[in-house]
Amino acid sequence: MPVDPTVACVVGVDYGTLSGRAVVVRVADGAELGSAVHDYSHAVLAESLPDGTPLAHDWALQVPSDYVDVLKTAVPAALAAAGVDPAHVIGIGTDFTACTMVPTLADGTPLNELPEWSNRPHAYVKLWKHHAAQPQADRINELAAKRGEPWLARYGGLISSEWEFAKGLQLLEEDPEAYAATARWVEAADWIIWQLTGTYVRNACTAGYKGILQDGAYPSREFLAALNPAFVNFVADKLEQPIGRLGDAAGTLTAEAARWTGLTEGIAVAVGNVDAHVTSAAAAALDPGQMVAIMGTSTCHVMNSDELHEVPGMCGVVDGGIVAGLWGYEAGQSGVGDIFGHYVDNLGAEWTHERLTELAAGQRPGEHGLIALDWHNGNRSVLVDHELSGLLVGETLATKPEDIYRALIEATAFGTRKIVETFTAAGVPVREFIAAGGLLKNSLLMQIYADVLNMPLSAIGSDQGPALGSAIHAAAAAGAYPDVRTAAAAMGSVTPNAYLPDPEAAAIYDELYAEYSTLHDYFGRGANKVMRRLRAIQRKASA
Amino acid sequence: MPVDPTVACVVGVDYGTLSGRAVVVRVADGAELGSAVHDYSHAVLAESLPDGTPLAHDWALQVPSDYVDVLKTAVPAALAAAGVDPAHVIGIGTDFTACTMVPTLADGTPLNELPEWSNRPHAYVKLWKHHAAQPQADRINELAAKRGEPWLARYGGLISSEWEFAKGLQLLEEDPEAYAATARWVEAADWIIWQLTGTYVRNACTAGYKGILQDGAYPSREFLAALNPAFVNFVADKLEQPIGRLGDAAGTLTAEAARWTGLTEGIAVAVGNVDAHVTSAAAAALDPGQMVAIMGTSTCHVMNSDELHEVPGMCGVVDGGIVAGLWGYEAGQSGVGDIFGHYVDNLGAEWTHERLTELAAGQRPGEHGLIALDWHNGNRSVLVDHELSGLLVGETLATKPEDIYRALIEATAFGTRKIVETFTAAGVPVREFIAAGGLLKNSLLMQIYADVLNMPLSAIGSDQGPALGSAIHAAAAAGAYPDVRTAAAAMGSVTPNAYLPDPEAAAIYDELYAEYSTLHDYFGRGANKVMRRLRAIQRKASA
Repeated sequence: MPVDPTVACVVGVDYGTLSGRAVVVRVADGAELGSAVHDYSHAVLAESLPDGTPLAHDWALQVPSDYVDVLKTAVPAALAAAGVDPAHVIGIGTDFTACTMVPTLADGTPLNELPEWSNRPHAYVKLWKHHAAQPQADRINELAAKRGEPWLARYGGLISSEWEFAKGLQLLEEDPEAYAATARWVEAADWIIWQLTGTYVRNACTAGYKGILQDGAYPSREFLAALNPAFVNFVADKLEQPIGRLGDAAGTLTAEAARWTGLTEGIAVAVGNVDAHVTSAAAAALDPGQMVAIMGTSTCHVMNSDELHEVPGMCGVVDGGIVAGLWGYEAGQSGVGDIFGHYVDNLGAEWTHERLTELAAGQRPGEHGLIALDWHNGNRSVLVDHELSGLLVGETLATKPEDIYRALIEATAFGTRKIVETFTAAGVPVREFIAAGGLLKNSLLMQIYADVLNMPLSAIGSDQGPALGSAIHAAAAAGAYPDVRTAAAAMGSVTPNAYLPDPEAAAIYDELYAEYSTLHDYFGRGANKVMRRLRAIQRKASA
Repeated sequence: MPVDPTVACVVGVDYGTLSGRAVVVRVADGAELGSAVHDYSHAVLAESLPDGTPLAHDWALQVPSDYVDVLKTAVPAALAAAGVDPAHVIGIGTDFTACTMVPTLADGTPLNELPEWSNRPHAYVKLWKHHAAQPQADRINELAAKRGEPWLARYGGLISSEWEFAKGLQLLEEDPEAYAATARWVEAADWIIWQLTGTYVRNACTAGYKGILQDGAYPSREFLAALNPAFVNFVADKLEQPIGRLGDAAGTLTAEAARWTGLTEGIAVAVGNVDAHVTSAAAAALDPGQMVAIMGTSTCHVMNSDELHEVPGMCGVVDGGIVAGLWGYEAGQSGVGDIFGHYVDNLGAEWTHERLTELAAGQRPGEHGLIALDWHNGNRSVLVDHELSGLLVGETLATKPEDIYRALIEATAFGTRKIVETFTAAGVPVREFIAAGGLLKNSLLMQIYADVLNMPLSAIGSDQGPALGSAIHAAAAAGAYPDVRTAAAAMGSVTPNAYLPDPEAAAIYDELYAEYSTLHDYFGRGANKVMRRLRAIQRKASA
């Protein structure tokens, strides 16, 4: 029985690092009718497994049943909050953190759910921010550069330790038994769809950005064998799977998943997707040259283009990686809100973001005399070097906390400008900058970004952009719109020119950005590798 | 009636930035029998004159009557605290901040004490940290370099804005009437002796270090005229005066000064002196190669040598500048304790020096992964550039306040090592390092200095070193000892090898010091003048 189009709804589920959020959205206009959040009961395992088995430095694991719990609790709660008849829901879509990897049996059962594996760290989900595969990533990059692998340039010249191959190689080399038991090495973004539909469809987004699938092929058997002879069949055995286009239906909701969610068996389930990428749809910003920045603890930049170019330091370029039919580009800043948060956390209780922002807002650009580099969490844009670290120049005995706070905000804005300029210089011009994410609420920060970029800033209309974006994909998957771009135009929302640059401020920031660029190149491009050496000394001292 | 040598005492008075301290010392063994402190009622005038007349940025003035009040209150109080019969006091000596300048009439009356001048900023004492004469200092340096003035190298190549000529030129150019009314341009160190003795004797120390008196001559009339034609007679009219050797008697106590102090008219009054320089006597460290570091908000390094060399960036080398018969070298770090203090002040109430020190003490060298440059108050050693500023490299999201605190301590230790190495390389080897001043009480800091310098640290025995040093000079002036070195050997006190370097820590600090040196040269020697440019942008933005 077809649903009346005026009441038809979709559900979007956004899987974050610590919780999942479900939102019920009206198909006709994108109105967000109700939402609910469920915190993962195991959060992030960084110190030990649930049974107390300790974890090494840089590990970050999760428990897959927490993801299912979001379906069981947040979806029904969102429906209740929306006051929507579940029978009116015609589809569900999801987005996930990435690259977050689940080792499973052939039927999708996560390894950690088998009693004999429950005390083995490698049987758990490796969360995106699991950074213990850096040695493997280093070898992948070295070998790929040496062999001249053509796919390397599609990733700005560097494969991240966060991605499928580095994490998979770590699994093999540190726990060969667990590797052998892992029939499928599954993105969590696809694993959740598998749970909803009973079908394993690999989404085009993570397959491309995290799985090194380019022009229809993964890295070769020769390459894998050269990394480690036992790794030779990694792709064939554990990765290869039919690819689903974003916004297509991966399948339909199973009876079991219908029971979990309270939704109707058989409704459309969209192909899995990634939080940042679906946000473009939520901001109705899928045209070439529209750069969407999802600004939170870190920032992810996504943009479409009808041309393929190699952009230095980009995270990746993937055909259909954001929307089918266009090249999707991704870049990122690994520390943004995290940097301000860390600064405030280290000050005493009398200092808050609000107070610092208020004081900093009273200053003119340049008045504090400071320049910072925003590499407190490394640099994954342009330079792609996790060993870089923060820098602050210009502090005097008159420097106040709000001065440093403002300088840190400006540093992240300079980092964004570096990305925008790099894309434009590489032949992928940025025509519009659309801000999304939690930092949108800081209007000082937004004005600084507009002034530093010397561009008007558009602002996404929703404060739950990823969930809305997933819902838009669900609407397309359900056939309510012919494709995601049409769905996004109808259901997404954006405020153009929300912040306009001030020419006087922009002129001063041009001067400061020149200083930032000099320091960026000096510390980031090898002239002075002090940051790397400090890390090495630190590791030695802590050993 | 000669005083029984076993009960003979002397009084030392140390004039600091905010207060004066008097101490009564036994001549025979240097025992400190009693002391008292008097706070200047006007403290430092930085915002306005006492009548509300506003002061510009970078001004720092004082009121000379505050200095006399120290004689009237702290000296009698110290005598009372010591329980010493004033008749047993055979001499008095003083030391002062420098370069601190008093504009006076021909009889020594400070200009500000005349009603018609009391509302004129230039009629007041320009305290050492009055920094508003920087434009004049810049011109002095430029002209001296251009003309190849031979005295320039005696000051490490740069004359400070704090010194007599820059402050005098500012007086002339900003208030020519006050300049004309200034019959004598007097170091406060000598002005106080003038009040005690009725005689104006210019001490060899400030005349040399601050007054550019070298080889018996001041800068020439031609040089002065080239700076400003109206400045041509500055030396002849306002500066020239017989020079008194340190430790000699400038004269004897007047009846009026005897009434102020409660001391006996006619006792010896030592030639004026400077706080840092008299501390060498208090530490019994007057031999060539003994570097005394007076470590407080800033650090001053003083050392004697029997040879004259040009040391890059030293503050000055003066014949008899510390003790008669030797070349006295001075160097300095313009920010030390001030840097830690500023950091703690900005953190919030739950953070204290004690807590940060305790936490930092639990770390191994290199463990925090940070390097700082200690230029928050500019650099007056080696580089001599007030426009330099602080730097911190290596901060990550895991950096804690105690990490930064420790890195700042280490940065000042690296700055000290830079000075020690520069002296040794210039042919003035540092054979022993003796620490004095308020920072002695921080044993973590002292151990870090020993490890960074890779030298044993000796520690002064007194916690009121300058006042003790002044008392030692009083004993010499009174003839109780044949000279200051003999008096210092008997009355000074030091703990040799108070801190010994740990070889393992020293090895890590060698690595970190190499990083410090690279950054020091990159930011300090012109490769990247970002610090200067940030100051310029800041001035423009604040204007």
